[in-house]
Amino acid sequence: MTAVTDTQATIAAVRRDVAALHAELTRYQLVVWTAGNVSARVPGHDLLVIKPSGVSYDDLTPDNMVVCDLNGAVVDGEHAPSSDTEAQAYVYRHLPEVGGVVHTHSTYATAWAARGEPVPCVLTMGADEFGGEIPVGPFAVIGDDSIGRGIVETLRGSRSPAVLMQNHGVFTVGPTARAAVKAAVMCEDVARTVHIARQLGAPLVIDPSDIDSLHDRYQNVYGQQKDRR
Amino acid sequence: MTAVTDTQATIAAVRRDVAALHAELTRYQLVVWTAGNVSARVPGHDLLVIKPSGVSYDDLTPDNMVVCDLNGAVVDGEHAPSSDTEAQAYVYRHLPEVGGVVHTHSTYATAWAARGEPVPCVLTMGADEFGGEIPVGPFAVIGDDSIGRGIVETLRGSRSPAVLMQNHGVFTVGPTARAAVKAAVMCEDVARTVHIARQLGAPLVIDPSDIDSLHDRYQNVYGQQKDRR
Amino acid sequence: MTAVTDTQATIAAVRRDVAALHAELTRYQLVVWTAGNVSARVPGHDLLVIKPSGVSYDDLTPDNMVVCDLNGAVVDGEHAPSSDTEAQAYVYRHLPEVGGVVHTHSTYATAWAARGEPVPCVLTMGADEFGGEIPVGPFAVIGDDSIGRGIVETLRGSRSPAVLMQNHGVFTVGPTARAAVKAAVMCEDVARTVHIARQLGAPLVIDPSDIDSLHDRYQNVYGQQKDRR
Amino acid sequence: MTAVTDTQATIAAVRRDVAALHAELTRYQLVVWTAGNVSARVPGHDLLVIKPSGVSYDDLTPDNMVVCDLNGAVVDGEHAPSSDTEAQAYVYRHLPEVGGVVHTHSTYATAWAARGEPVPCVLTMGADEFGGEIPVGPFAVIGDDSIGRGIVETLRGSRSPAVLMQNHGVFTVGPTARAAVKAAVMCEDVARTVHIARQLGAPLVIDPSDIDSLHDRYQNVYGQQKDRR
Repeated sequence: MTAVTDTQATIAAVRRDVAALHAELTRYQLVVWTAGNVSARVPGHDLLVIKPSGVSYDDLTPDNMVVCDLNGAVVDGEHAPSSDTEAQAYVYRHLPEVGGVVHTHSTYATAWAARGEPVPCVLTMGADEFGGEIPVGPFAVIGDDSIGRGIVETLRGSRSPAVLMQNHGVFTVGPTARAAVKAAVMCEDVARTVHIARQLGAPLVIDPSDIDSLHDRYQNVYGQQKDRR
Repeated sequence: MTAVTDTQATIAAVRRDVAALHAELTRYQLVVWTAGNVSARVPGHDLLVIKPSGVSYDDLTPDNMVVCDLNGAVVDGEHAPSSDTEAQAYVYRHLPEVGGVVHTHSTYATAWAARGEPVPCVLTMGADEFGGEIPVGPFAVIGDDSIGRGIVETLRGSRSPAVLMQNHGVFTVGPTARAAVKAAVMCEDVARTVHIARQLGAPLVIDPSDIDSLHDRYQNVYGQQKDRR
Repeated sequence: MTAVTDTQATIAAVRRDVAALHAELTRYQLVVWTAGNVSARVPGHDLLVIKPSGVSYDDLTPDNMVVCDLNGAVVDGEHAPSSDTEAQAYVYRHLPEVGGVVHTHSTYATAWAARGEPVPCVLTMGADEFGGEIPVGPFAVIGDDSIGRGIVETLRGSRSPAVLMQNHGVFTVGPTARAAVKAAVMCEDVARTVHIARQLGAPLVIDPSDIDSLHDRYQNVYGQQKDRR
Repeated sequence: MTAVTDTQATIAAVRRDVAALHAELTRYQLVVWTAGNVSARVPGHDLLVIKPSGVSYDDLTPDNMVVCDLNGAVVDGEHAPSSDTEAQAYVYRHLPEVGGVVHTHSTYATAWAARGEPVPCVLTMGADEFGGEIPVGPFAVIGDDSIGRGIVETLRGSRSPAVLMQNHGVFTVGPTARAAVKAAVMCEDVARTVHIARQLGAPLVIDPSDIDSLHDRYQNVYGQQKDRR
């Protein structure tokens, strides 16, 4: 296979993956209408694949995904890319270990974001997946680098793959798009359970050393070896 | 095609559209049993198409939609129209830019309506879609113009396409029925997230100038050009 | 057709109706596992048809419904009838206008029942369907007439087709089983919306005369003439 | 049939049962992603069958279930077993009457667990299924016997088939895997309803003697004789 057809096959695979992963956002009710998206880096290329803007989840196919460069400019695709493309491109430019990014306005996580309050780590699931609290990033208006910069700066100061952008919603990252989707699912689940716990009193604190050991085991032992995130 | 068959084709298309859009109300659980409906203006005619009264969402077809004039009198259809027809006809008579109206009793939005309290604009999604708070209209009993008048007067004082009618539920409008359905979905999502944020403290305020710029961008840039709401 | 085959056809129709209506309980998530049921009076006979005890909703068919007399004794059926049969038989014996009874432990309605608190009428939907607050019946332990008696005495003092049995759950009645199912769906919807309204403050009061006129119109005008509840 | 093929048939039946029962965890939204599992004892053998670790619920088949001995060591299976296998094996070793174990992080039950607070018995459904409050077990970190020991010690002091492990989630047991799944469904339902009741005031107390009689009847009379839990 030539390098060109090899690249085409790689991009086709990423298009399929990104289109299909949106079904997890609707399955777990993390999104309504068209308000949320998945993107993935094209391995070995300075490219990303992302949801088209304003297209229903029912209508997503590999073909209508949009390929952009890492400045967010469209390289291939008949639709305009998600309006979150610039923020996500910024993340790929500045965090080379990131292979996938997800954005949602999932209800409970966004409620914490509306108060500008991180979700405390009071569940073993939170320790497993996030290694501590789920942090809050700055308020930032769409249109320049400020959302991307806020995501990157917040994630750099944390073990969490999720950041709650103030008054806005959730961005999650992962080595793959699938891992970023998993983090988005877990973020809402943890945000919801801690919210509900807090409604009737104060959750019990988990010792930081227990958080460390839970996080270490989960990141290194859980799941099938071939499928480790 | 003659003018008559042209009109028939237009009405047939609106019937299909209105019948199909009810599936979004059930998908997002904005309605139970038969308590909510979608209507659309027939473009170029003083007619509207609306759900029949008391018919299950499972049983809706283009054929059992009801065509009414803009005073709410049935022009074509074997069923009685929704009991909200008079209120919606009033909206079409007084707001010529409106092409679709939706009515629901969606849970969280109706909870704000029960307290007579507008939903404050503390989320970027609220700024995008509603351009500020989601306003409350007056208490009005079905049977005369008072619901329609309450909707129109409240919407005229606001950028919001949604109004919370006190102790009652939600009415939304849009240039198309699809846009009105989207506003109903977003209204419940914003009402729910702000409610949940408020349960554990005060949401952070968004600066009015940021609300303005978010709303302006969203109304003018978001989505595919051909599909702008 | 002879009188015997006529009765058989009538019972077969009620079996189909009762089996099918359980799908509305699961659709609206009013029940989990096997904890809720629908029954119907066999028109013109001192018989009722009810769900078998402990059988999954997925496995319900017209054939495994159970026919009982109005003392709750099995007349036809291979399964034991619902453990709520005695209570429902009591209702049919004492309220001749009732054609259907539904029992659920739907979440929000049961939460009001756990506090022994009626759901106040602060929504037009509550006025429409219940004509006032949804009342609370006494605490009663299964095994004698006390549940049935509590249902009947509470419903006799109210316009509501639903009663919240203290610390237990919901019983609803109607002229048909379908109407009782509708009342169960509406009861949970109203209980949930009023609960959520109350979480952030006091709902606004609806004037009793407005409740009366809403209830009167809904009971007499709403829906298709042929399908009036 | 020889003893060997008999054992193979028994294990094959348990594999089918365990794989299929996970559909109840997703149906009732007790789990997200891969965070929860069902196991069953192989009758007449010191073996258990459990979900593979990190495999999606959509992808579960009888074939990819994992057979382990009662120390948690894999006996048959191509995948690594659930990371909860050691805890569940401990339960089977120490509670010979247990035929099935379920683990979830279902939202409302886990919220009570985060506060270390048992769910009080203020619903007849709680009395029926749990015979009193749903108890809380100790905080325990995965990796040794401490989770299994915490489950066993807590269940021994209670009539409840469910235990809320502090800051973690739910474990339930039963004579069969199906009964343990039912207990997990009921645990979340009761935890949710009592939480919601408590949000607006104090639930009414049920007399301990009524709890006893409800529990006794439910465990001995409810359901079809052939299908008694």
